[in-house]
Amino acid sequence: MAAADADAKYELITRRLQEVLGGETLKTILNEGRSPKCYWGTAPTGRPHIGYFVPLTKIADFLRAGVEVKILLADVHAFLDNLKAPLELVSHRTKYYQFVLLAVFESLGIPTSKLTFVEGSSYQLTKDYNLDMYKLSSIVTEHDAKKAGAEVVKQVDSPLLSGLLYPGLQALDEQYLGVDFQFGGVDQRKIFTFAELYLPRLGYAKRAHLMNPMVPGLGGGKMSSSDPNSKIDFLDSPSAIRKKIRSAFCEEGNIADNGVLSFVKAVLIPISQLRLERAEGKTGVDSEEGQNAKGDQTPFALEGAPAGTVFSIFRKEEYGGSLHYKDFDALEKDFAEKNLHPGDLKTAVADAIVKLLEPIQKAFEESEEWKQVEKLAYPDPNAKPEKKKKKKVYHPPPPGKGKNAKSEGETVTAPPPGSDIVEAAVEVAKTEKEQ
Amino acid sequence: MAAADADAKYELITRRLQEVLGGETLKTILNEGRSPKCYWGTAPTGRPHIGYFVPLTKIADFLRAGVEVKILLADVHAFLDNLKAPLELVSHRTKYYQFVLLAVFESLGIPTSKLTFVEGSSYQLTKDYNLDMYKLSSIVTEHDAKKAGAEVVKQVDSPLLSGLLYPGLQALDEQYLGVDFQFGGVDQRKIFTFAELYLPRLGYAKRAHLMNPMVPGLGGGKMSSSDPNSKIDFLDSPSAIRKKIRSAFCEEGNIADNGVLSFVKAVLIPISQLRLERAEGKTGVDSEEGQNAKGDQTPFALEGAPAGTVFSIFRKEEYGGSLHYKDFDALEKDFAEKNLHPGDLKTAVADAIVKLLEPIQKAFEESEEWKQVEKLAYPDPNAKPEKKKKKKVYHPPPPGKGKNAKSEGETVTAPPPGSDIVEAAVEVAKTEKEQ
Repeated sequence: MAAADADAKYELITRRLQEVLGGETLKTILNEGRSPKCYWGTAPTGRPHIGYFVPLTKIADFLRAGVEVKILLADVHAFLDNLKAPLELVSHRTKYYQFVLLAVFESLGIPTSKLTFVEGSSYQLTKDYNLDMYKLSSIVTEHDAKKAGAEVVKQVDSPLLSGLLYPGLQALDEQYLGVDFQFGGVDQRKIFTFAELYLPRLGYAKRAHLMNPMVPGLGGGKMSSSDPNSKIDFLDSPSAIRKKIRSAFCEEGNIADNGVLSFVKAVLIPISQLRLERAEGKTGVDSEEGQNAKGDQTPFALEGAPAGTVFSIFRKEEYGGSLHYKDFDALEKDFAEKNLHPGDLKTAVADAIVKLLEPIQKAFEESEEWKQVEKLAYPDPNAKPEKKKKKKVYHPPPPGKGKNAKSEGETVTAPPPGSDIVEAAVEVAKTEKEQ
Repeated sequence: MAAADADAKYELITRRLQEVLGGETLKTILNEGRSPKCYWGTAPTGRPHIGYFVPLTKIADFLRAGVEVKILLADVHAFLDNLKAPLELVSHRTKYYQFVLLAVFESLGIPTSKLTFVEGSSYQLTKDYNLDMYKLSSIVTEHDAKKAGAEVVKQVDSPLLSGLLYPGLQALDEQYLGVDFQFGGVDQRKIFTFAELYLPRLGYAKRAHLMNPMVPGLGGGKMSSSDPNSKIDFLDSPSAIRKKIRSAFCEEGNIADNGVLSFVKAVLIPISQLRLERAEGKTGVDSEEGQNAKGDQTPFALEGAPAGTVFSIFRKEEYGGSLHYKDFDALEKDFAEKNLHPGDLKTAVADAIVKLLEPIQKAFEESEEWKQVEKLAYPDPNAKPEKKKKKKVYHPPPPGKGKNAKSEGETVTAPPPGSDIVEAAVEVAKTEKEQ
């Protein structure tokens, strides 16, 4: 393989990331002409929301660069996160996640021949995996496990043992999925360095780690992420989307804590760029990339926008006319300087999201199987009175744990491994509570 | 079943125990004419020593009362205790333990038709068991797990995760072995009450727990249990036995910390009593009990001792003549009042142990398979120089763990589950170090 090719792939794989650990290993693989293998994990708990576009947009780069991507649907973790949800329900949710994620890649025209979905239960309960889990527990101290999970496991007075096990399990996943690198949000950094330290102690290879920056939710930061209005479901109607965006926190001139701006930067502009690249014939390794893409494949630019525009904002002439941006920095600068009003930004973002979700919602409407799975995975919360008894059998608060049990519902005790989206788990907790 | 019968069995099952939790459940089973099922666990690590007679003498009572006894040979725990010992070595040790334990029961003439050996690896790495382990880890707090292991897991600054998992695993063993009660030393009390609390939270039955008093080693208390001279191997020659007993701590008049006296109380006198009972036709549920017993089946009494003597001490006429005891209390009183000299006691105890081990050693000599297993299980420690490299691959001290790694070798970090003999694990550690 030409070095230039390998360099281009490395650039595509690592662009927009906040941090890369073990990049040299990755370069070596690319220079040898091999396809790197990677994994990203998510626990199929609550309904996935459009925040998932953040990791998926990055994974699209991996797939375009010929990386073999495994998406771990961590069903065992999802089950353990909330013992009230029976395994069968988790199994439906696993299928639902798969439908959504596949539909996203198809809507973006990303070839999925190198994408595999792996259910955690397919190997995380096997003899070898568990023996390794026990081996790890015999060399990992409580202190080190706690330190590794510090950013993703909620720190409470009386933490559960599961929180101490997760860093080790996530390390073993790298080995059992046979990958060269793991991808996740930068909040996973300590979990990743833990894996780099401990896998070699079991005689396994140290893996590379690629980290996305943290992206606040549309509600603006973690603080309000428990507000259900801040999360847009993949199946939300255009009017629901517009309503949620209108109520999103997006303060004039404030670029530090602005989920709407962040979504433009992390999702909308990268997708526009992808479409522009493709229009110029710059596909990924698969030259047929984009040919089967569903829905409108133009960038999020208005008609008549200058060539190279990645994001346009409609404005009446009387308010200065529409704005067109060729990169995020220019847009951010305008917003910081109050040349771009939150109301106009919100309208443009809502339009873009409606357009983004349209082919996904069409695929949903056309698939009887997906519709059926959706009903089973997230049954009507207003129709289950007898669930409460089960709760008592499985989950009475152990001594000193009452507080803990409650707080579990508020953040990611067991993180969707590798996910930089904290909201997913929050949403589950809510769903469960309503049941 | 006659109530009297059930009462007699209950008495046989619980005699000499320090504590019984859940005795009513046991009575109900006996009153219904069913055979209770029990488990006792031990990790096949170092060479078993004659301290094992303590739990085995009690297990003999269970078997005589018709209890179905499962002896858990916790090979997974043994492997994890010391990752330097490969699984294959553990497998040989598991076989060696089985040979020794069976030979003990055979030498005592205890029917073993209701005795089963179960290797931990036969179920502790299965899908169901591990899912339950993960479930437990999702409801057990670090604090509660630590509290449960407080007496059997060495308390260090930087404890390993394994120490936190063991209480849960030991609880699950009760369920997966399908027993009605677990037997162990009273040092297991917190582990047992942990199991009583948590098994029902997984929807499983709470089990009864029968606890032996703690018996100090022949060296006298835990303090000197790391002295190899204090541990008598099942295969030690008569001269080695006499030498070790001679050097045992056995201070004149001191009955509080006296491993020699304790051994008489917990092992030798109960075995004498068993033999006397049998001579009177009081067998257990199996009326053929004792017919195949190997070796001399008389009590540890001198010729010409009065009927009912359970322990005799030879003394020349000039020193007051031999002493004969019908129970331990009388012997202890004499020792406390310095009417019985440590030297005379030691000689009598050494004679008794030589007699006790004779049929076991004969069985060993007659079994080519056992002899072969012994060589493989405990290879000559002076013939393995290259092991040290392996140590580096598997077990470099993680940050802040160096101290911990060392102290593991000194006591039972992962307890032989249910065992009241601390010395076993100490001996392994020594064996490993020498390799």
